Amino acid sequence: MSLQPENNSKVAEEEEGATPPTLSKKAAKKEAMKLEKLKHQQEAAAAAASREADPLSENYGEVSLQDMQSKPVSGRIWTEIGSVNESFKDKTVLVRGRIQTTRPVGKNIGFVVLRDGGFTIQCVLTVAENLISRQMVKFATSLTSESFVDIEGIVSVPDAPIKGATQQVELQVRIIHCTSKALPKLPFNIVDAARSEPDIEKALQAGEQLAHVTQDTRLNFRVLDIRTPANQGIISIQSQVEEKFRQYLLSKGFRGIHTPKLLAGSSEGGASVFRLDYKGRPVCLAQSQQLHKQMVICGDCKRRLHPRHLCEFTGLDVEMVINEHYSEVMDLVDCLFAIRKQYPFEPLKYPRKTLRLTYEEGVQMLKEAGVEVQPLGDLNTEAERKLGKLVLEKYGTEFYILYQYPFAVRPFYTMPCYDNPEYSNSFDVFFRGEEIISGAQRVHDPELLISRAQSCGINLKSIEKYIDAFRYGAPLHGGFGVGLERVVMLFCALNNIRKTSVFPHDLKRLEP
Amino acid sequence: MSLQPENNSKVAEEEEGATPPTLSKKAAKKEAMKLEKLKHQQEAAAAAASREADPLSENYGEVSLQDMQSKPVSGRIWTEIGSVNESFKDKTVLVRGRIQTTRPVGKNIGFVVLRDGGFTIQCVLTVAENLISRQMVKFATSLTSESFVDIEGIVSVPDAPIKGATQQVELQVRIIHCTSKALPKLPFNIVDAARSEPDIEKALQAGEQLAHVTQDTRLNFRVLDIRTPANQGIISIQSQVEEKFRQYLLSKGFRGIHTPKLLAGSSEGGASVFRLDYKGRPVCLAQSQQLHKQMVICGDCKRRLHPRHLCEFTGLDVEMVINEHYSEVMDLVDCLFAIRKQYPFEPLKYPRKTLRLTYEEGVQMLKEAGVEVQPLGDLNTEAERKLGKLVLEKYGTEFYILYQYPFAVRPFYTMPCYDNPEYSNSFDVFFRGEEIISGAQRVHDPELLISRAQSCGINLKSIEKYIDAFRYGAPLHGGFGVGLERVVMLFCALNNIRKTSVFPHDLKRLEP
Repeated sequence: MSLQPENNSKVAEEEEGATPPTLSKKAAKKEAMKLEKLKHQQEAAAAAASREADPLSENYGEVSLQDMQSKPVSGRIWTEIGSVNESFKDKTVLVRGRIQTTRPVGKNIGFVVLRDGGFTIQCVLTVAENLISRQMVKFATSLTSESFVDIEGIVSVPDAPIKGATQQVELQVRIIHCTSKALPKLPFNIVDAARSEPDIEKALQAGEQLAHVTQDTRLNFRVLDIRTPANQGIISIQSQVEEKFRQYLLSKGFRGIHTPKLLAGSSEGGASVFRLDYKGRPVCLAQSQQLHKQMVICGDCKRRLHPRHLCEFTGLDVEMVINEHYSEVMDLVDCLFAIRKQYPFEPLKYPRKTLRLTYEEGVQMLKEAGVEVQPLGDLNTEAERKLGKLVLEKYGTEFYILYQYPFAVRPFYTMPCYDNPEYSNSFDVFFRGEEIISGAQRVHDPELLISRAQSCGINLKSIEKYIDAFRYGAPLHGGFGVGLERVVMLFCALNNIRKTSVFPHDLKRLEP
Repeated sequence: MSLQPENNSKVAEEEEGATPPTLSKKAAKKEAMKLEKLKHQQEAAAAAASREADPLSENYGEVSLQDMQSKPVSGRIWTEIGSVNESFKDKTVLVRGRIQTTRPVGKNIGFVVLRDGGFTIQCVLTVAENLISRQMVKFATSLTSESFVDIEGIVSVPDAPIKGATQQVELQVRIIHCTSKALPKLPFNIVDAARSEPDIEKALQAGEQLAHVTQDTRLNFRVLDIRTPANQGIISIQSQVEEKFRQYLLSKGFRGIHTPKLLAGSSEGGASVFRLDYKGRPVCLAQSQQLHKQMVICGDCKRRLHPRHLCEFTGLDVEMVINEHYSEVMDLVDCLFAIRKQYPFEPLKYPRKTLRLTYEEGVQMLKEAGVEVQPLGDLNTEAERKLGKLVLEKYGTEFYILYQYPFAVRPFYTMPCYDNPEYSNSFDVFFRGEEIISGAQRVHDPELLISRAQSCGINLKSIEKYIDAFRYGAPLHGGFGVGLERVVMLFCALNNIRKTSVFPHDLKRLEP
């Protein structure tokens, strides 16, 4: 058996036994629909009645809720769909998965494609005495897409390759039970959501209009959207990237710590954007861990790794003692991004040793290309992207560090340059033309810190404890922050940060 | 040279050249102090003058701030104090560390104990022509405790063991520069903060009053407190525990994800404790990730690990698809806590297979011991501790699972028992008499979820998206949450959760 169930909404009419759709005139359509509905109702009642009369009724149907409330363990073993291959030939397996598609072929044959993670398997029901009844085929092919089912069946290996499923075996169904029914009408089909823009475009040129799921619809029904293979992949990569970062840093003597998220008074000396009431006391949400992570360094934790998640952004914050130069921090960035070699999505161009350019050199390159920027101001996104292109042309790398930023555009705790007060000991890391890391040497001298805070208009009272931390002996130190979503977005060459956040929230969206 | 500098505030007077303190009568004391102060001022001025005249002045002093602003890399290599041992004999090394203590012995000899992490090394300055001047000895021994210094010296191996330092070598100082000066008067000494209660008690019985640093003082000056070896250890253990948990779960196919912390409207269907304004929109802080982590499960991420840090508590949240029974979740807990074998602080008693008792059995044990508890209510902390003792006596384990809790005491999304609606498919894990994990099978049926939410008085509108997530086919699932600070507290048999949080915040404390 190697008939293929359809994978999109086209109707396949060529197979044996398929009933062609009844074509009725527009005038008769309404009446026909009414009749259709009535017919369906009658059929449903008849199916229920005939099921009761079916001696095979134990082998299919819906699992009662009670049976899913952790009744004593049955000892049954579920096989992962992704693992079922030719070596299982003639064996009976029990699999659990979602209905991807169903298709009846006449009344005696039914196809069900079952999905689990990124894997799909084609399951076949063929009417046979004492094994499969017509009612059972009807039950299976009437199941709604995305419903969960348990299928027990015998593995067979068809002669022709199976196009509509990842697993190149079929399951000859013996038992099929539904554990969770999806609504008949989903906001969109996973298959539609999984289609690429070029594929939609290509089909359109061939005269076929395929469904397109907008970003907004996807985010509204994110639990459906994240079922697509691409999103499953992004989530896995994100988890792996975070873990590789963590493992590398821990192997280098860093320790992971957590800092407070609710702070007394106003946040980090600046404006308190997020004020709230904590059991009668005014508090604010920490907007970064900057001050606390430096305080931890003053507590003799030489190398700190701070995972954080604040206001819809997952950050990995690193703070470390340095010996004498903030290039030590940049060296760590180099090593950390060795992981980029493992994900060769689009061939990423980079040399073994990361290119380092001063901010001044960057400005000069832009100037020569006709882009005017303030030499002591910051680069806007457009200028950053342009510089990324210029660097790629000149140096053949999409990954580089721009250092020695103008003093005026960095936070008050940034160490000034030793020989030029207009610049600072700071750097940004660029990846495919976008900033992914921002870092610097920090001021460890309390008097300089006070004068810096004052000239930035920060209320000294609000950062008193922070400044005090440097009065009991403070090490030279520096650090940086990485935006996890940005890194993954750029690794995978995605065009929108929302694609790398499981539940992206922004000014317009705070749900789901 | 094997003279020992003192480690506490007692004055050692027996060494050669030590000046005994001038004993003056009470009447003359005030005048003497005045003179003393004047003398110090004169001495300081004289020292500055003599330093200028000292041909060795390049070899000691304070590093200018400019020299710490990342001037071009010098190529010098710093050796970790903890690595300096006998194999370095006669070699010149450069180390950086904090002044633990200093002690002059007459005017020609000075001791400096330098600390780095948990390691200390004794450094010696002996006046010698063209090498060490009297001014240099004075500079070194006047440095305040906790200041940072760079010392270059030659490693020597004394005959007698060194009691006042971890490293059994001495450093014959050649160059000493201070990179950061601590205040002369610290809120408390690290040595005092590092002393154990039994040691203070023992000294008291021997007639000696040693300084005791209260928990409140410690937390007020947490950057000093976390410098003690015990706190350094706790921070390392915490980081390791989190990493082992993560690694184990990731190895089992879990993926780490992050959920939103700012939610529209009211939080999790309950009272919005933390309301705030997000650019003109009313939002609230997520108090748990429960709803989002279940939604992710509905998005076909079968096994999820959710690190979180909310309101001063670091949680590791786990949510997983189950096949049929929530014991599958409890089995995972068993495996996860295999890590307990690695930290044998106090001999922790546990069998290879974790003991599992029903809540009913627990209540019965308490009843037999004369403790009356509501059979369908929750256990209070006292009853939990008592039960912990009873279980230890009867079963010889300090680690066990209590399952099948009364339905009424668990959240609305908990799955009821299949055969007894008064109980639920839930469990708590106890460790040394305290709950460290709470878990359950969750309701995956949208209609049951609605009726449960309604009977708990939850506003359905506020959890609409959550309930909808189960309408597109939902897997059987369950999960649990672990409190990282609690686990570490109980692993290390500490008596206060504040000891395992770097910056503990609570109702009374929101700083530092």
